[in-house]
Amino acid sequence: MSGPLNGIRVLDLTRVLAGPYATMILRDLGAEVIKIEQPGMGDEARGVGPFKNGVSLYFMSINRGKKSITLNLRTERGKKIFLDLVELSDIVIENFRPGAMKRLGLDYESIKLHNPKIIYAACSGFGQTGPYSTRGAYDMIIQAMGGIISITGEPGRPPVRVGASIADMTAAMYTVIGILSALHHCERTGEGQLVDVAMLDCQVAILENAIARYMASGEAPQPLGSRHPSFTPFETFETQDGYAVLAIGNNNLWEKFCAEVGCPELIHDERFKTNALRTKNYNELRPILADIMTTRTTDQWVEEMEKVGIPCGPINTIDKVVQQPQIQAREMIVEVEHKSAGKVKMAGIPIKLSDTPGKVEAPAPDLGEHTSEVLSELLGLSNEEITKLWEDNVI
Amino acid sequence: MSGPLNGIRVLDLTRVLAGPYATMILRDLGAEVIKIEQPGMGDEARGVGPFKNGVSLYFMSINRGKKSITLNLRTERGKKIFLDLVELSDIVIENFRPGAMKRLGLDYESIKLHNPKIIYAACSGFGQTGPYSTRGAYDMIIQAMGGIISITGEPGRPPVRVGASIADMTAAMYTVIGILSALHHCERTGEGQLVDVAMLDCQVAILENAIARYMASGEAPQPLGSRHPSFTPFETFETQDGYAVLAIGNNNLWEKFCAEVGCPELIHDERFKTNALRTKNYNELRPILADIMTTRTTDQWVEEMEKVGIPCGPINTIDKVVQQPQIQAREMIVEVEHKSAGKVKMAGIPIKLSDTPGKVEAPAPDLGEHTSEVLSELLGLSNEEITKLWEDNVI
Repeated sequence: MSGPLNGIRVLDLTRVLAGPYATMILRDLGAEVIKIEQPGMGDEARGVGPFKNGVSLYFMSINRGKKSITLNLRTERGKKIFLDLVELSDIVIENFRPGAMKRLGLDYESIKLHNPKIIYAACSGFGQTGPYSTRGAYDMIIQAMGGIISITGEPGRPPVRVGASIADMTAAMYTVIGILSALHHCERTGEGQLVDVAMLDCQVAILENAIARYMASGEAPQPLGSRHPSFTPFETFETQDGYAVLAIGNNNLWEKFCAEVGCPELIHDERFKTNALRTKNYNELRPILADIMTTRTTDQWVEEMEKVGIPCGPINTIDKVVQQPQIQAREMIVEVEHKSAGKVKMAGIPIKLSDTPGKVEAPAPDLGEHTSEVLSELLGLSNEEITKLWEDNVI
Repeated sequence: MSGPLNGIRVLDLTRVLAGPYATMILRDLGAEVIKIEQPGMGDEARGVGPFKNGVSLYFMSINRGKKSITLNLRTERGKKIFLDLVELSDIVIENFRPGAMKRLGLDYESIKLHNPKIIYAACSGFGQTGPYSTRGAYDMIIQAMGGIISITGEPGRPPVRVGASIADMTAAMYTVIGILSALHHCERTGEGQLVDVAMLDCQVAILENAIARYMASGEAPQPLGSRHPSFTPFETFETQDGYAVLAIGNNNLWEKFCAEVGCPELIHDERFKTNALRTKNYNELRPILADIMTTRTTDQWVEEMEKVGIPCGPINTIDKVVQQPQIQAREMIVEVEHKSAGKVKMAGIPIKLSDTPGKVEAPAPDLGEHTSEVLSELLGLSNEEITKLWEDNVI
């Protein structure tokens, strides 16, 4: 395994998305991730489509390169094996509802007795504390409760969700940041700790200027379609053949734009002289720009604006996204070979490190694919002992 | 300073959002962040509203606790001071267009000669390599080019952006993860490296199952309003007095829901027996559920569903978000006192560490507030030397 986290071992009890996405990042950066799954059923994401030859491409994309072992944590023998693995590991991560690990006797307080250096990360909907702590949550609920839905979409239209599970993935990224900062502390002091990340907290953390706007005005920000709340013009326009996004973030760009499109009179128009004025007089400016933007195709706009250095881009559908030369050059679509599913394409690693780059090097594991390997190599169990564990439904 | 990154020093050349959000996370976790700003003008986010007593609350929220020094990197003396600081620091981070630091003679290759352990993070729109590398980018452009806009919004309606600058913030989080993983490697080997993060790459990394769906079907996924592409029912419904989100992720929850709302016949309806069937027959199921959901208010739904353990939540506007008891209990809205703006509320830290929690402990700095302090304490410059630097427009 290559990458800056080479040598770090992660025991991964997570399922579905937030947790597995976090351990995917750790694995991409070189950590060894041992995914511990319930015998028989495993991570429920294995059953979520789309499928290729019976294999979930969804599961594949977020569990690439991990090892899978089955282990029944409700049995004493299963708990013992888990704790033996804890002694050999750096990080434990789980995304159960708060309380579940305690009922198993495997909460942080219990397991740190077996390894005081362990970093124990718990990623949940609402966190390990507070009145909502034990409530169930899914991305969609958290997007709704966390406010992002209230500022996304068209004014006066029904609510829309962010089209990817942003609440899960944001929590995953914050969990990784928490783990790596705790790892830094541990390396200096030899002390592990609990990393408690709530999806709801993370949504509040990414509301950006919406909180500042609310605190300043006392009014809850509303959805603005494709428009930015503080910059104008900074939005989508219809072109001759589709849409283009224009992002004019300062007066210099505004003047360049007006000159380029043959409307120098706009530069001197008192209503539009500054960003603050353009934002204030948006309703007067929008139709003027909308007319201008229908005079060329999206590709023409992108090319012309690129020449004069004005940020402008197309709205890419996913097929266009993955074909972009920049995405190809950055190796942001990678391929792994799976024995049943064949070649599978997925997103690459967005962290480019000059000396210890990570690598997407293997497909997701089958359920329990590495059980024997891990138990024999790490814990020294014999074939007979492993067979007995199978027979006793421990693994 | 408290937190797991206590003792780590960051030289922060970033402006606006992606970079400053990354260094905010590092600062919240205990690192010392020295924000280096251009004399006279500083970070342009200082001029972005909303304002309170002339102070940008937007700037405040993402620059809390940092130190600010002014330094003209276009002067030889300014470069020398910067390089002297590099020798005393662990991390340099910038979010200029690729090429800008090289033109100053301050790219990674140049500065590592002064400190081989330095971790140099560059966060840009398109990355340090590839055909689009030197193009300008803003969040809105990257949201459009990266695909998230194409899967967000209502079917057949104009495109909408995610209501927060998710492309900036995702890149910030990945940059922090890259920095901390490189720091781990550096502590083991004494070797720094370049961390190159592109906003566009990060958008591809968070497309979640949209890429898998495209790869499986060859068809570009479309926006689905508030609906999840793979789970049903998993969306927003109108209630008697607003909206509620229902997230039924498995058959067990589905059966519970049907029983609870007095429609046990739905459990045995062949069209809706499994999640796959409910998704396939969405158009038949949706109106049945829409009728049911209008029979109670949002609060009634949330309370009733909570009792039986079915994930259900309100769509909170920002005022409701910050008032939630869970958000209060988790200290996710914090307050700092600024000498001109007074008490300012902002999002707290979503990473809860048991032993070395971070802290939001100070407001954002005024432009150059810490110039004298940093130059005298770290570099041992005298008052006379510092005065001379002011006079020469170096600081």
